[in-house]
Amino acid sequence: VRDLGGLSFLLVRDRTGIIQVTIPRKKVPEAVLSAVRAVSRESVVRVTGSVKAIDKAPGGRELVPDTFTIISQSESPLPLDVVEKVPAELDTRLDARFLDARRPRVAAVFQVRSAAMQAIHEYLFSRGFLHITTPKVVAAATEGGTELFPIAYFEKEAFLNQSPQLYKQMLMAAGFEKVFEIGPIFRAEEHNTTKHLNEATSIDVEVSFADHHEVMALLEGLVRHVYERVLDQCETLLGQLEIRDLEVPAAPFPRIPYSEAITIAQATIPEPIRHGDDLSTAAEKAVGEEMGTHYFIVDWPTEIKPYYAMPYEDKPSVCKAFDLMHPRMELSSGAQRIHQHDLLA
Amino acid sequence: VRDLGGLSFLLVRDRTGIIQVTIPRKKVPEAVLSAVRAVSRESVVRVTGSVKAIDKAPGGRELVPDTFTIISQSESPLPLDVVEKVPAELDTRLDARFLDARRPRVAAVFQVRSAAMQAIHEYLFSRGFLHITTPKVVAAATEGGTELFPIAYFEKEAFLNQSPQLYKQMLMAAGFEKVFEIGPIFRAEEHNTTKHLNEATSIDVEVSFADHHEVMALLEGLVRHVYERVLDQCETLLGQLEIRDLEVPAAPFPRIPYSEAITIAQATIPEPIRHGDDLSTAAEKAVGEEMGTHYFIVDWPTEIKPYYAMPYEDKPSVCKAFDLMHPRMELSSGAQRIHQHDLLA
Repeated sequence: VRDLGGLSFLLVRDRTGIIQVTIPRKKVPEAVLSAVRAVSRESVVRVTGSVKAIDKAPGGRELVPDTFTIISQSESPLPLDVVEKVPAELDTRLDARFLDARRPRVAAVFQVRSAAMQAIHEYLFSRGFLHITTPKVVAAATEGGTELFPIAYFEKEAFLNQSPQLYKQMLMAAGFEKVFEIGPIFRAEEHNTTKHLNEATSIDVEVSFADHHEVMALLEGLVRHVYERVLDQCETLLGQLEIRDLEVPAAPFPRIPYSEAITIAQATIPEPIRHGDDLSTAAEKAVGEEMGTHYFIVDWPTEIKPYYAMPYEDKPSVCKAFDLMHPRMELSSGAQRIHQHDLLA
Repeated sequence: VRDLGGLSFLLVRDRTGIIQVTIPRKKVPEAVLSAVRAVSRESVVRVTGSVKAIDKAPGGRELVPDTFTIISQSESPLPLDVVEKVPAELDTRLDARFLDARRPRVAAVFQVRSAAMQAIHEYLFSRGFLHITTPKVVAAATEGGTELFPIAYFEKEAFLNQSPQLYKQMLMAAGFEKVFEIGPIFRAEEHNTTKHLNEATSIDVEVSFADHHEVMALLEGLVRHVYERVLDQCETLLGQLEIRDLEVPAAPFPRIPYSEAITIAQATIPEPIRHGDDLSTAAEKAVGEEMGTHYFIVDWPTEIKPYYAMPYEDKPSVCKAFDLMHPRMELSSGAQRIHQHDLLA
């Protein structure tokens, strides 16, 4: 509320933005004036009235109220400043997370994420993918490498699933041909980095009768579709996130062999890296700067990829696996699966 | 394979159905004949050739092959009969679940379920709902009544979430107005009935500035949309499930007060039931038979609904909660939430 004597201004925010409520003291009911005097910042209110075009107001419009109701009065002072004049510590933000998420920058993350999710569902449903949900409480690990959270499952021990991978493959063996799942995965990693999360949302796809090239084309199309939809739907939100240079990445994304990525990293970063090593964060960054766009790393050493990745028939030390890379980070990985029982065993 | 001497017939199944492959011995390459002799039932094959219209074949078409490749040869005998001439025990079915799910009746369940999920996503996205994913590893119960699965969360104890309820309400307080989540919920119920599952998929919706009537209208529209899409897209699948009488339930669904549902149950079932009791399975069945369609039970006793359900201002012993009922079972429940801090406390 800004009170200029005969005239007051309030800003009212909803999910779509902010509107200025203009209150000429002599022209609105007394009940409105008393509610406006009583209301505290970040209270939840209902306002009805006439909307008028006005150049000076945010969004080019203002509302002159006939009624003004306080639905829920906020405490004062607030535990954090929603309009972001005062930066808050992370602890404060998490303790008052519902207020933190009213900050336009934070709210924009949730909204852009939802737009991306909508784009992913559209893309996969329109291509005949079946929506699946697979068990999260499981009896054994999907693959080695990451730790499991144990659950007390009545008298037995069970675990939270690391990945829907084996269920997806079973659904391919069952003949469903194309499936996807968007759901939680759980990894008991005791690391405190931006690359590790104990609980995350995984977007999983599985396709029958496809090699890694077909899956890379699908994934490339999916990423581009998400960019297109977000650019189309989220202009204001991207502005709130101060993202001004977003572009749909050009297709096809370059494909470079793992061995070439290692060579680039060796030429760029000080620490030693050898053929057969996984790519460190520094190595990913070096290769990403060289590539400057989304790209795939293909033809990985068989021994550093999961046991179900298909080796090349003519060179079994290399497999039909790929990582999808953004210039700044890994986005996804995949492979043609081994469909031959003897080879898999 | 049926071998009639000079002519053989194979049935090849994919996700869309079955096609007859017709093999006139003298007109196809020798490589095709030897592959057809070698192939075992339920093997995975690739067949290329010419498709011809023919009245006698399933689907009115047959394929005469130029090539026939066995991608993966199945063992013989199979652990269960996919074409369902021999019924299998549940243990056998679960041990060979990937084969069990090739049975058209079982496959149809997965496919109709996916069509319903697609319809739900469409309906909610098109009405401006934000897609959210909330934590499954939590520090405390959402509400009493159901048991929690404990997790060893490093040195602390945590639990699997029973419901996204409190996260959804926090997102309303954050101002997101309309959200939905489709994800797993976990309930450590040691009961062995078709009404209890330790892990299930929950479709959760939360709306701001709405009373229970608005949410019932939304839910009614959602259910009808799912029926419409499934009827439109799944005619063949419904046939495989021997469902021939599915109809979009007429709107509006009747709303009956809880007290009326109790009166109907009291008049119908032998066991005693009193005002204030939850509806038993027998009571639900009795009321469902009386109603004969989808219906809502409204105006529940406040004391048997969750603590966050809003009581009527003029009669606080009754609350603005509802259950959505199919004639044979409960489908969903909801309520206007308490938004007043003092009342909630």
